[in-house]
Amino acid sequence: MSSKTNERVVVIGGGAAGMSAAAKAKRGNPSLEIVSYERSGYVSYGACGLPYAIKGEIARVEDVVVRTPAQFAKQGIAVFVRHEVLAIDPSAGALTVRNLDSGETFVDHFDKLLIAAGGSASRIPVPGADMPGVFTLRNVEDALAIKAWLGDMRPTRGVIVGGGYIGLELAEALAAHGVSLTVVERLPQLQPSLDVEMAAHVQAELERQGVDVRLEHGVEGLSGDERVREVTAGGVRFPAEIVIMAAGVRPSVGLACAAGVALGPTGAIAVDDHQRTNLPGIWSAGDVAESLNLVTGKPTWVPLGTTANKQGKVAGENIGGGDARFGGIVGTSVVKIFDIAAASTGLSEARAQAEGFAVKTVSATAGSRAHYMPGHQPIHVKLVYEVGTGRLLGGQLVGREGISKRVDIIATALHAGWTVEQLSELDLAYAPPFSPVWDPILVAANLAKK
Amino acid sequence: MSSKTNERVVVIGGGAAGMSAAAKAKRGNPSLEIVSYERSGYVSYGACGLPYAIKGEIARVEDVVVRTPAQFAKQGIAVFVRHEVLAIDPSAGALTVRNLDSGETFVDHFDKLLIAAGGSASRIPVPGADMPGVFTLRNVEDALAIKAWLGDMRPTRGVIVGGGYIGLELAEALAAHGVSLTVVERLPQLQPSLDVEMAAHVQAELERQGVDVRLEHGVEGLSGDERVREVTAGGVRFPAEIVIMAAGVRPSVGLACAAGVALGPTGAIAVDDHQRTNLPGIWSAGDVAESLNLVTGKPTWVPLGTTANKQGKVAGENIGGGDARFGGIVGTSVVKIFDIAAASTGLSEARAQAEGFAVKTVSATAGSRAHYMPGHQPIHVKLVYEVGTGRLLGGQLVGREGISKRVDIIATALHAGWTVEQLSELDLAYAPPFSPVWDPILVAANLAKK
Repeated sequence: MSSKTNERVVVIGGGAAGMSAAAKAKRGNPSLEIVSYERSGYVSYGACGLPYAIKGEIARVEDVVVRTPAQFAKQGIAVFVRHEVLAIDPSAGALTVRNLDSGETFVDHFDKLLIAAGGSASRIPVPGADMPGVFTLRNVEDALAIKAWLGDMRPTRGVIVGGGYIGLELAEALAAHGVSLTVVERLPQLQPSLDVEMAAHVQAELERQGVDVRLEHGVEGLSGDERVREVTAGGVRFPAEIVIMAAGVRPSVGLACAAGVALGPTGAIAVDDHQRTNLPGIWSAGDVAESLNLVTGKPTWVPLGTTANKQGKVAGENIGGGDARFGGIVGTSVVKIFDIAAASTGLSEARAQAEGFAVKTVSATAGSRAHYMPGHQPIHVKLVYEVGTGRLLGGQLVGREGISKRVDIIATALHAGWTVEQLSELDLAYAPPFSPVWDPILVAANLAKK
Repeated sequence: MSSKTNERVVVIGGGAAGMSAAAKAKRGNPSLEIVSYERSGYVSYGACGLPYAIKGEIARVEDVVVRTPAQFAKQGIAVFVRHEVLAIDPSAGALTVRNLDSGETFVDHFDKLLIAAGGSASRIPVPGADMPGVFTLRNVEDALAIKAWLGDMRPTRGVIVGGGYIGLELAEALAAHGVSLTVVERLPQLQPSLDVEMAAHVQAELERQGVDVRLEHGVEGLSGDERVREVTAGGVRFPAEIVIMAAGVRPSVGLACAAGVALGPTGAIAVDDHQRTNLPGIWSAGDVAESLNLVTGKPTWVPLGTTANKQGKVAGENIGGGDARFGGIVGTSVVKIFDIAAASTGLSEARAQAEGFAVKTVSATAGSRAHYMPGHQPIHVKLVYEVGTGRLLGGQLVGREGISKRVDIIATALHAGWTVEQLSELDLAYAPPFSPVWDPILVAANLAKK
């Protein structure tokens, strides 16, 4: 290796994974030349904050940005926003890139490449899906567009297509702008990471907040004039001056796939525990890549910011000459829906059955604080475990307080590979304002032991 | 064994451990005759709720009671309150009991005995410690007496002797009654389960709330007329119309010790993993008994309601003919001090050093929510781990929100015997209202890995 020409690293995608990797690689090996290409106008932002920016809880949408291109430049990382990578030639170490503002196309070269192209919102191919007033939410520009529409058009009625976590967070956000909402969901339940009876608590909260929830109402079409006026779903017509398409996310694998980067069984990019793809010198991380599911031992695709950050850090460390390993995930998530939170980790009952496990479950409702403390709220807990071995496979919690970090106790137990009996033995913190003396998780684990 | 005479179980102490055991034993073997003797007037109550009853957050002090003697009677468990066991004769299976109301003394017999006598507040032997207006807090009567004094005497100045968790909870309770407070503590820090720099955050909150904190001020005496008027500590005189002696708790082992029940190295009753003492047919559980510390592998004495309930359940199951095992504790606790919470699990740095571990620590301050979310608060985290192996030994957290269940993540990792590196790999729940994308625990664990 010549000391004159420094190694050139190209990062495709300026989201959490790409920019974490760039920063980590540069710290690990300051002699690296690092360039990042990002299609949108923003890099290094907390995409999960966008619903709260639309809601208005965060003053400016741009406040979710962690670091600007100028800040990366000071660190010696060149960031090009509004640049789309059109093609990768792995054998030549070449990339074709388009400057989206000038329209100019050029070729760049890399010694090492990180594909962190993220995911994109699935736009359901129904008539009218491209009308003004119809939005998806993935990036800062999307959030700015939704916020502008809310401000300019003052919609009073809206439809959210899809009852997953982005749809539900946006329900809260739009309701804060006085929009009367209908959520239409193709499946017979909301929030598919939860089992149906746990998802019913989420539905009850939405309905308590005045949201019209329509399950098994697949979207069939949108119509209007110069802008959207109506959504048809499940044969029913819903008036709407704003529509959010939140019917899922897909990994943006087109570019990688065309270049010969292997995809895994989930359809996302297959990576090893060093975030290496099948091609030498090419890493992948974030929403475009798979992870190992530590519960099933199989690849999984869970596009979340936590995993993107961790994978990016590992990829960056390895690109910078280190030897880091990403162990995998158990699939932990939490979502706030108006005044409740719903969390899950590991496998739901439905998913565990689909994976071929012989499953038992236990459900309990216990207080968030000691029974005599004012303000205590019911916490609904469900544990999923294996018949015979008692091995914990997953857990779900729904309630008004104390949900988010309680699910992490179950997540930690899943990492440890515990049985429900081991879970029941935990020495957890107790003080009346924060928990009952038997924490809801212990109540459920004790029931499971019987 | 004759089918005519049922086995007779006597439970000494009607607190959480004793009554959990009684209920569990009866469910396990309904033919058992179960009798419980309790010195105070109440059984089966949440002692940890008493500060909140004094504060007035819980309407009536008696609301902390879980089950009354009448409710136990329906279950076939005979509860005698205001009955003190004066002596145990293990070889004869006999007990001498005094009815504290009538003064009458009688002899009872047992086939199986559970000693769940709890702990008692240490009354420091200083002049004036028995004056009217000087209180300790262990049971419902103590709380009623403090509340009555607050109502009747309307004290404007008070002194709390002892800066442990009961003293600090009572500071909040008394301040709610308009009492201007001084906390005097013999040691150079508050809350000895925390390391000194973490305890400083607790002190800062007390001072922010207007509480005068005096460290290294051991109490020397109390004085007054028909009631307390002044406390002298560290050579300084503090006016006080109410004084709380909260200078620690001791296991009530006198009775057991006199009967030949072996104590362990901590001074509490030694028990095996079935809650058996050294004497056949005699079990012990709760604040009077030791536990195995899973971090040190040695017996420990941590008198907390969580452990008392678990030990009681195990003892009761075994007394009822089952085969239950209490694995041990890691020493997890949390306390609310005005607007903050302070939590710890495992060993503090000081304690780990005293136990002979070669110790490293890492401290971090990170947000309770995403940085762009309004209302996010700093969380101070400290991890204690072993040099060389990286084995996690303990953790501490202080902050305004998200403390109580976060410490449980560390507690779970301690149960699993993990390294800080394993802790850093956790897939924890993330949503901007509940956590930053890198949870404060992961921030600290990542620093420790370096």
